[in-house]
Amino acid sequence: MPLLVVGSVAFDSVQTPTETREDILGGSASYFSYAASYFTPVRLVSVVGEDWPDEYTKLFESRGIDTSGLQVLPGAKTFRWTGRYFDNMNDRETLDLQLNAFETFDPVLPEEFKRCQFLFLANGHPTIQLNVLEQCAGATLRVADTMDFYIRTAREELMTLLGRIDGLVLNDSEAKLLTGDENLVRAGHKVREMGPRFVVIKKGEHGAMFFSKHETYVMPAYPTENVVDPTGAGDSFGGGMMGYLAEQGNFEPQTLKKALAYGTLAASFTVEAFSLDRLKQIEREDIDRRMEEYRRMLSF
Amino acid sequence: MPLLVVGSVAFDSVQTPTETREDILGGSASYFSYAASYFTPVRLVSVVGEDWPDEYTKLFESRGIDTSGLQVLPGAKTFRWTGRYFDNMNDRETLDLQLNAFETFDPVLPEEFKRCQFLFLANGHPTIQLNVLEQCAGATLRVADTMDFYIRTAREELMTLLGRIDGLVLNDSEAKLLTGDENLVRAGHKVREMGPRFVVIKKGEHGAMFFSKHETYVMPAYPTENVVDPTGAGDSFGGGMMGYLAEQGNFEPQTLKKALAYGTLAASFTVEAFSLDRLKQIEREDIDRRMEEYRRMLSF
Repeated sequence: MPLLVVGSVAFDSVQTPTETREDILGGSASYFSYAASYFTPVRLVSVVGEDWPDEYTKLFESRGIDTSGLQVLPGAKTFRWTGRYFDNMNDRETLDLQLNAFETFDPVLPEEFKRCQFLFLANGHPTIQLNVLEQCAGATLRVADTMDFYIRTAREELMTLLGRIDGLVLNDSEAKLLTGDENLVRAGHKVREMGPRFVVIKKGEHGAMFFSKHETYVMPAYPTENVVDPTGAGDSFGGGMMGYLAEQGNFEPQTLKKALAYGTLAASFTVEAFSLDRLKQIEREDIDRRMEEYRRMLSF
Repeated sequence: MPLLVVGSVAFDSVQTPTETREDILGGSASYFSYAASYFTPVRLVSVVGEDWPDEYTKLFESRGIDTSGLQVLPGAKTFRWTGRYFDNMNDRETLDLQLNAFETFDPVLPEEFKRCQFLFLANGHPTIQLNVLEQCAGATLRVADTMDFYIRTAREELMTLLGRIDGLVLNDSEAKLLTGDENLVRAGHKVREMGPRFVVIKKGEHGAMFFSKHETYVMPAYPTENVVDPTGAGDSFGGGMMGYLAEQGNFEPQTLKKALAYGTLAASFTVEAFSLDRLKQIEREDIDRRMEEYRRMLSF
């Protein structure tokens, strides 16, 4: 089934302890779409400025991503993020953030997109996320991401959003911030009690946790010694997870669990290079081969 | 098969964000022995002072732990540790450390103990650990733990030890310190290249990683919202792991993997109460029941 994602497309400048890259393709919806495209047709809604190179649109389209919802805002520049990773490659700081075209992003969905059954609201202001939800009133599965900035500055709108979605994906530090609880198992269930039927807490190099009313489980990250750039790992996780769910057309407990594993593996490829460089090199069979290794790793 | 452990027995004073306990039973060899006793007969070698209550010896013996190697040092006091946990319950600081009887610990093994095939050298000075190794020259499986203090102050002796053991168990921060590598996958293999055939890195609430020449895998911690006191989790992990290996009488790859899972579960019980309080309430079947849940959690 087609999967709709609404979120940011950006130029990133990334500093790791050993390398620096400037103005590379980034943004939550870029990573999400590309990762999801290995599983299902993706429809992308975002906004860019006039500095957006056509080759990036073509790159998305080469993976069957429908870019008809990618607006180009006249006179504007594309969202830019600059960040630096610490030695552990798990923590980072934002050095510069220019929302540019994304600042006034007011997504208007093409008619065909509104009938999408699988919807992912990538990082954005909860008011925008709610606006998209209203346009996709008939969606079967509605999952959102959020971040510390909105937890701090738009908590009320976020709480409204939580009452209207099926799933929330967020980082460990964000789950602690949202609930005030340092224990991630308790925090996960507290977030769930705020509305969504399931919650996924992403723990970076330590994997991900899943919470529903009847289930709590943890999946470790796929162990890799080759972490080049962690940017987009969380968004690729979301893309792999939602892509698999849309492909399967359901979100039964066993499908959700396998979707979390696919999310884990999509992220494990993303971190092996800057931007989408590693994802660009792989095929679905590479993901499935790694899935077999991952399964073997977890069976005893 | 019998399992020999040499390490500390102590009185702990523990402060968590919500509770404080003073002078409770602790020490690496206490947690290790008790956890291992669910799997195999354990032989404990340690030293205490005259303040050591006979009831603790009886507690060990009630689980079939052979305490004939537990020396009482005349005129001495028992090892005391005081520590405080931070809000995340994963990080802690040592507030006070009095080695007391343990300071001059010079383990002399009873003759029968020297023939033990499965040996665990719990935390201690590498010179002492080497001394024990020599007394157990015929052991089949020799595994050691170490800590940041000895990595900093006795690196040379530690390197000698690493060349003479089959396995090393250490924390994530210790693996980074020992190798100077922030990536745990690389760090694990670097430690392995220092001598041991396998290395286990304990990551606290994030689980454990295993490294041998041909295998790298990760096991998540068993998710619990009921973390009362993490003290002894790592030592209980060691006890569950080594106890299972000794019970099986081999350390083939599949046995080792299952041993890591048992270590994970032993630790998951320990953190649910102070001291050995939670372990005291359970039977082997409780561990096996949790094992079934853990297996289910990791299968998809």
